[in-house]
Amino acid sequence: MSDNITSSEPNFHRTVPDGDEFERLVCKRCDFIHYENPKIIAGAVIEHQGQLLLCRRAIEPRAGYWTVPAGFMELGETPNEGAARESFEEARATIEVGSLLGVYTVKRISQVHMMYRAKMTDPHFEPGPESREVALFKWEDIPWPELAFPSVTWALRDYHKVRGVDDFAPFSNPEGYQDV
Amino acid sequence: MSDNITSSEPNFHRTVPDGDEFERLVCKRCDFIHYENPKIIAGAVIEHQGQLLLCRRAIEPRAGYWTVPAGFMELGETPNEGAARESFEEARATIEVGSLLGVYTVKRISQVHMMYRAKMTDPHFEPGPESREVALFKWEDIPWPELAFPSVTWALRDYHKVRGVDDFAPFSNPEGYQDV
Repeated sequence: MSDNITSSEPNFHRTVPDGDEFERLVCKRCDFIHYENPKIIAGAVIEHQGQLLLCRRAIEPRAGYWTVPAGFMELGETPNEGAARESFEEARATIEVGSLLGVYTVKRISQVHMMYRAKMTDPHFEPGPESREVALFKWEDIPWPELAFPSVTWALRDYHKVRGVDDFAPFSNPEGYQDV
Repeated sequence: MSDNITSSEPNFHRTVPDGDEFERLVCKRCDFIHYENPKIIAGAVIEHQGQLLLCRRAIEPRAGYWTVPAGFMELGETPNEGAARESFEEARATIEVGSLLGVYTVKRISQVHMMYRAKMTDPHFEPGPESREVALFKWEDIPWPELAFPSVTWALRDYHKVRGVDDFAPFSNPEGYQDV
């Protein structure tokens, strides 16, 4: 199952609607335009007593690899709220969301990853249904080769750079990784 | 024409797919899941020789009112690239996009407005097809009561607060305007 309606769908064809500059999927019968736009992944680098919370994924993609809690933002929420919801869903962690750490773009799949700094407001955590394991890691123990996605690596590294800094501009993709 | 497939579409019904926690529109025939997620509006507060560039909208919503160049982010671009594209489309302005000024959420319509600071790299501008007029305004001449959207007002105000400041955390909705 995919979240893209493809042009093989019988009633949709690709065409540039009047007044538009881009090809869209348009229904041949009713002229309904199916706009496809980038999606936001909202996530959080969560600290608790000097350690960082990571989840080992129970699901594809990248099952078995470690990630920070993150997922598709839902309708009717802010990115901060999305990050908090995902933290609860994946790690049963209740968090206070802080500043925007980074905005990382994965152009190939049209995703914008908005990663926030956060703190646990309660010491409890446990795996949600999408996680095999949840754990707190000291900085020197982070399993770098076993991280699930580049944006997880970038967010953790960038988190470390601004520890103790209050006002900073959010990070973006590292040099040379603009077109991942 | 709307960009939402509604449940009145004959083959879609609202249901919670296996392993999901939210209702989705699912095709009764092929189990295709139509995920609906928030959309990003990418825009820019553009300065040129101490003045700010505004466009008077030629189209609804809010035709006749002033806005900064901004619009729906397209597939395969970064938010910065989206802001630059919109500036060219609406004002024929070529810009260099700077730091992220604000992330404003309009939950009611599930939009995330990512507004950037920018400078014109060329003094030329003129109305694109979606603008009736484009002009540079001194700060004291900004037509506040004739601005098109709250996020335009917020972005301009916030821009002014960080003039001359290099590193700052992006702004978000003003206090009391979290649920607009």
